[in-house]
Amino acid sequence: MNAAIIVIGDEITSGRKIDTNSSYLARELGEIGVAVARIVGVGDDIKEVAGVLREAARAYRLVLVTGGLGPTHDDLTRQALAEAFGTRLVLDKPTAAYIEERFRARGLEAPEAVKAMALVPEGARTLANPVGTAPGLVWVERGTEIYVLPGVPSEAKAIFSTSVAPELRRRSGRDFIKTRVLRTVGITESEISEKLAKVIPELKVRLAFLPEATGVDLALTATAGDEAQTLAALESAVSEIVPLIGDRVYSLTGEEIHTVVGEMLIEHRKTLALAESCTGGLVAHLLTEVPGISASLERGIVAYSNKAKVETLGVCSDLIAEHGAVSEEVARAMASGVRERAATDLGLATTGIAGPTGGTETKPVGLVYLALAYRGGCEIARHVLTGGRDLVKRRAAVRALDMVRCYLASRE
Amino acid sequence: MNAAIIVIGDEITSGRKIDTNSSYLARELGEIGVAVARIVGVGDDIKEVAGVLREAARAYRLVLVTGGLGPTHDDLTRQALAEAFGTRLVLDKPTAAYIEERFRARGLEAPEAVKAMALVPEGARTLANPVGTAPGLVWVERGTEIYVLPGVPSEAKAIFSTSVAPELRRRSGRDFIKTRVLRTVGITESEISEKLAKVIPELKVRLAFLPEATGVDLALTATAGDEAQTLAALESAVSEIVPLIGDRVYSLTGEEIHTVVGEMLIEHRKTLALAESCTGGLVAHLLTEVPGISASLERGIVAYSNKAKVETLGVCSDLIAEHGAVSEEVARAMASGVRERAATDLGLATTGIAGPTGGTETKPVGLVYLALAYRGGCEIARHVLTGGRDLVKRRAAVRALDMVRCYLASRE
Repeated sequence: MNAAIIVIGDEITSGRKIDTNSSYLARELGEIGVAVARIVGVGDDIKEVAGVLREAARAYRLVLVTGGLGPTHDDLTRQALAEAFGTRLVLDKPTAAYIEERFRARGLEAPEAVKAMALVPEGARTLANPVGTAPGLVWVERGTEIYVLPGVPSEAKAIFSTSVAPELRRRSGRDFIKTRVLRTVGITESEISEKLAKVIPELKVRLAFLPEATGVDLALTATAGDEAQTLAALESAVSEIVPLIGDRVYSLTGEEIHTVVGEMLIEHRKTLALAESCTGGLVAHLLTEVPGISASLERGIVAYSNKAKVETLGVCSDLIAEHGAVSEEVARAMASGVRERAATDLGLATTGIAGPTGGTETKPVGLVYLALAYRGGCEIARHVLTGGRDLVKRRAAVRALDMVRCYLASRE
Repeated sequence: MNAAIIVIGDEITSGRKIDTNSSYLARELGEIGVAVARIVGVGDDIKEVAGVLREAARAYRLVLVTGGLGPTHDDLTRQALAEAFGTRLVLDKPTAAYIEERFRARGLEAPEAVKAMALVPEGARTLANPVGTAPGLVWVERGTEIYVLPGVPSEAKAIFSTSVAPELRRRSGRDFIKTRVLRTVGITESEISEKLAKVIPELKVRLAFLPEATGVDLALTATAGDEAQTLAALESAVSEIVPLIGDRVYSLTGEEIHTVVGEMLIEHRKTLALAESCTGGLVAHLLTEVPGISASLERGIVAYSNKAKVETLGVCSDLIAEHGAVSEEVARAMASGVRERAATDLGLATTGIAGPTGGTETKPVGLVYLALAYRGGCEIARHVLTGGRDLVKRRAAVRALDMVRCYLASRE
């Protein structure tokens, strides 16, 4: 089945916002076996939008629309849909009740502008919005199904995954296409390419390199007549590829490294304390994205000043004076110090120069020392990372998390 | 003048890559006074691309195309252009010489596939590529100008800014368009809409609401005959709008709240210490994105466990036992405790239930207490935030930063 995606909003056609919804929807449709033939961006203009909707309804069997469902004067998608297909807006009572209930639950009265979101084109079906106020809409025009979702990405995703995807999946029953993403850290695209050179021509899956800021992802895509065959093809490709890259693969299923490390910590029942300088709380922030991490993460100290390193981590001020705050010795003292004070299994420390200023000839911007303290020892890593302040922070955080991963994996 | 942008590539229609070129080009065109009416994404298919090119040439006076100019088998834009407008590919000698020279300079022989990039549609003009091998192309079809740029963003930008923009600017001599983004927090789209209801019809600028997960942005776009007039129209709109929304506006120029707060702290020479529970280091991470923040941010404590709250912040364990870790009392003790220990001007604390588990009837998921301690006092805020774990964290962090902003602003 061929599909089109329509993205509505002046913020897109003016370039003020980068559209990420179409990419999400195209990927998800691909997983269901639906190929996207066209993506159309159009501004907040009823006639333009109605025109695009009519064209798409003629040319495609499935149309996904995002944007313009909100409560303000420039949210015109409901009107455009009504105009495109010759219907009118009517009050959808269940939606109106749902909106009032959402506000009542917070002790508020729904404003008039919000109540207008319950006006839907007569004949359209609504789709529950689990994370927002505006419901999704479905309109069927001569066999073409048009799904309309809000422009807010979290709402578009929520409605797509809970309502649209299940409906489409139920009906497709066609070729199964599955993609698996292997994620790596600490190895370059060309190093991986060399290691895989011999097996690539023989793989029964499509292999794409996706270099990301903090590592290289490998996307494997298999196509076959049934689900078992696609999964088997992926399995077999994974088992050929992974041994060649070794421990630089941290996920076989596309998870972020903090999810992998957080879940390993919880599963191994290991406790961790953090002492961050150059990463500035980013390691703590990433790990606390993982539900249940409170069982493992005892504390995090963002010791940005030398005073804080001395007072909160017990780093000796002479050590800082002698070696500088960005040094192997101070990283080791930070990791051991936080581990001891928190009485945890592991202590992880970062210290470095995130930039843009503060670099010297011997200690350039991007120099980072990482330390992982455990019972009876401490591992140190030294990296010189490239990129601006935010990238140095992100790359240092990922490398630090990777030390925890390797430590736990070697003890499995 | 109305324009269309066409983005070519399977990586876009499959969702493997997010298209950023169209957003860049739309913004740049806007600055020259050219409005983009439509953005079309299409896969690597000669017939589809040729069809889109023909449609666009009929409907618009200016068409910008990116993608499909590279050396590989799926780079088909040159062929599609030839097919769309009934011409054939011929060798462009200056381009062929340029390509050979680029390779010779590196001591290499140009591969055959790369040499094919010198084949251009007969009748097309080429545009120099200052940062890559593939030249840009210009094709004129019955008065419509079609500019074709590579898909690699750095190459598209280089050719656009050095060749396309100057050509368009020379000819337009028309309207200037400028956009300003006001950012708000703690007020809903519909509340803003009501407050502005009276002035909206009289504004001399276009107003768009851009709801984000952590607040609502307002984009103001002015169009006028010269730069001074557009800037004056924006100034006047800002001065009408801002007083109606009051202190809920945290930026008049589109900055993130952590940038605003970080720069205020540095400018006011105020020091800050953080005590984070539910935000898990996110506030520290955001503030440490701001260069120079080390002068203000003394430390951050991620006190995830009760033990850490007691040991690192001096919170009394009886207080936690009596009121629970998520309570006004504990928030206050965390903020005061970290401020005292760090000897800073301000102490900022967060405690709450980020979810997905841990909620109770009286303390639901999303309940957050925030505290800001200063000399002689402590402010408390209580919020019930919606969304998943990551959204609750982000929303709590933004609200916490906003307390610092309001405190500093009230003392200016």
